[in-house]
Amino acid sequence: MAIQLECGLAMRQTTLHAVGSVTFDPLPLQLGGDFGPITLAYETWGTRNAEADNAILITHALTGNAHAHDVEHPDDPKAAWWNLLIGPGRPIDTTRYFVICSNILGGCYGSTGPSSLDPCTGKPYCMRFPVVTIRDMVRAQRVLLEHLGVNRLALVVGGSIGGQQALEWAVTYPEMVQKVVVVAATAALTAQAVAFSTVQRQAIMADPAWRGGDYELGQGPNTGLAIARMLAMITYQSEEAMELRYARNTNRCTPIPAPTQAADLGKRFDVENYLYYQGTLLVRRFDANSYLYISRAMDLYDVSEGYPSLDDALCRIRSKALFIGIRSDLLFPAAHVRWLAERVRSLGGDASYVELDSPHGHDAFLKEWKQMANALSVLKEL
Amino acid sequence: MAIQLECGLAMRQTTLHAVGSVTFDPLPLQLGGDFGPITLAYETWGTRNAEADNAILITHALTGNAHAHDVEHPDDPKAAWWNLLIGPGRPIDTTRYFVICSNILGGCYGSTGPSSLDPCTGKPYCMRFPVVTIRDMVRAQRVLLEHLGVNRLALVVGGSIGGQQALEWAVTYPEMVQKVVVVAATAALTAQAVAFSTVQRQAIMADPAWRGGDYELGQGPNTGLAIARMLAMITYQSEEAMELRYARNTNRCTPIPAPTQAADLGKRFDVENYLYYQGTLLVRRFDANSYLYISRAMDLYDVSEGYPSLDDALCRIRSKALFIGIRSDLLFPAAHVRWLAERVRSLGGDASYVELDSPHGHDAFLKEWKQMANALSVLKEL
Repeated sequence: MAIQLECGLAMRQTTLHAVGSVTFDPLPLQLGGDFGPITLAYETWGTRNAEADNAILITHALTGNAHAHDVEHPDDPKAAWWNLLIGPGRPIDTTRYFVICSNILGGCYGSTGPSSLDPCTGKPYCMRFPVVTIRDMVRAQRVLLEHLGVNRLALVVGGSIGGQQALEWAVTYPEMVQKVVVVAATAALTAQAVAFSTVQRQAIMADPAWRGGDYELGQGPNTGLAIARMLAMITYQSEEAMELRYARNTNRCTPIPAPTQAADLGKRFDVENYLYYQGTLLVRRFDANSYLYISRAMDLYDVSEGYPSLDDALCRIRSKALFIGIRSDLLFPAAHVRWLAERVRSLGGDASYVELDSPHGHDAFLKEWKQMANALSVLKEL
Repeated sequence: MAIQLECGLAMRQTTLHAVGSVTFDPLPLQLGGDFGPITLAYETWGTRNAEADNAILITHALTGNAHAHDVEHPDDPKAAWWNLLIGPGRPIDTTRYFVICSNILGGCYGSTGPSSLDPCTGKPYCMRFPVVTIRDMVRAQRVLLEHLGVNRLALVVGGSIGGQQALEWAVTYPEMVQKVVVVAATAALTAQAVAFSTVQRQAIMADPAWRGGDYELGQGPNTGLAIARMLAMITYQSEEAMELRYARNTNRCTPIPAPTQAADLGKRFDVENYLYYQGTLLVRRFDANSYLYISRAMDLYDVSEGYPSLDDALCRIRSKALFIGIRSDLLFPAAHVRWLAERVRSLGGDASYVELDSPHGHDAFLKEWKQMANALSVLKEL
């Protein structure tokens, strides 16, 4: 197996931080065929101990990346997506643990995805990229861990599609995972969540700039992707949160252009301005084809796939498991997360459930720092 | 005032049915300026009595039309949108009442809307159509009623945007409305509902075939409109309903093309096929510009507009009022409908509230015939 390792190290504020990437030979994919070579970009914080039993794997959400923590701005919640939960003395304690986060297979932050060059053609894969699944992402992460000298995980933790990966880790590699925290994720998406996802992909593919996926970087389906993101942002929040933040206000000073540049009909509501803004932000930082593939992996995920039944899959879990639901989550209803925790427990698993009492919907796992820290503190007792 | 009346009469199954349209001079619009001439297409069932006090006005939802009841197929729920609630001996009893339903201003079923010809240019208005409001729609309906010899309504009843119209009737013309039934509608849309609406409009306007609204009939933004409809259908249902109907099934025999014609990634879920089908259906029967204007009227509606406060608006209601909420409604949460009923009552109004215990979401008012009939039976006691 050909391996390339590229690393950069930085020692700041007592946290050893490394940024790197590893490239490895093709892997078999869940839906058939081999695919590779695969590069995974990753970051680590802290140090692997001699026993190599102090590793924590953090798995990111749809448009996330490996930058879960920022050692230069450790207190800025916007500097990295789980910044405040990671660091010395924090729930994911970098003085005790060797913390790893990698960009997922299919992503566009350094890992192999649709925008990567296909070595056979020298051109980006685009829609010739294979349909990858959560299981494939997890298999690739396992290879990365091998290269980092990690054969056992003290903890796997992630939210949303990251929670799906965490669950998949506990089921696929039960012997490797000591503890698992599944945040705002379930055994499989609801029909409604698949439906929202489908509309988003249609909006992207309806944009003529998508060109069947063969767009030049930077000249892609920006309008379509912005519209997809607008819809996604609604599903990441809740009726309650939007009412608290925007209600029917029309006070925002500088209206920004809509994705379509079309004029407002009548007036501009703040909630519209907010969505336009969020659409614009994502277009600047995310690849539309990656969005198609990763959101589809989320839809396709069903932890029971390949097992005789859901129970057979869940029975495999040997980890101490914590499931965290969010009261107002539209995408992964709290009742479903709780049900999953109870199912694992009823099968003899060591599972507990905590619910975030938040109006912020699915996104609460990226906002409710205090509640998330409290929930993760249960880990110590597990 | 120039008036043209065109009528066709049909007597079937004891229900006198009339189809017609009336054209009248310009009306002042809520957001300024006069607009006209305005044509309203309408249907009536039953006969106006000598006292002209037996009229019922039915107000339709976003993509609805004047065909609320079908005298030829009175038992087919698909033959007309409120078919089973209307007819001899039914809750809206055509042997006792003179029942009227007109296509709303802005629509595309015979009433003046963006696809109508602008008499000044001889070309369709398209986006030169003015932004119309629920109040404007109601004002136009009032002119129609005058022409039908109706100066007093025994009842106004409608759901969704039709419920907004019913509420507006009771507030704007309190002296004319004896009873009002507001189904699945509130004083104003939530921020989340506006957000869903905005995404739908962006999807339409992002379609290059929209051409700033200046498309040839039949060559409009079919893909964009289908995507908008797909999203709307999600908001008309509920997580529960979609789980009951589709779950994660992939059993449907004949996959129909997606609006974008793009291939499936991995497999086709039944819920996707259903949404594609619904998108296709709407494209065949609805004008995209009408969709933009009517959905915007829905967003802009706030019954308190033009009054010092919401209470000042609601205080005007003299009708006996019934508010019907739907347990699983995503667009107009039942709690908001109940709140509105209680507010009217607390202001001294004669208001009651009934909740449909249905998993079918917002659409329940077009599906739960038995519960709707039971709810409307309260009318007799009012």
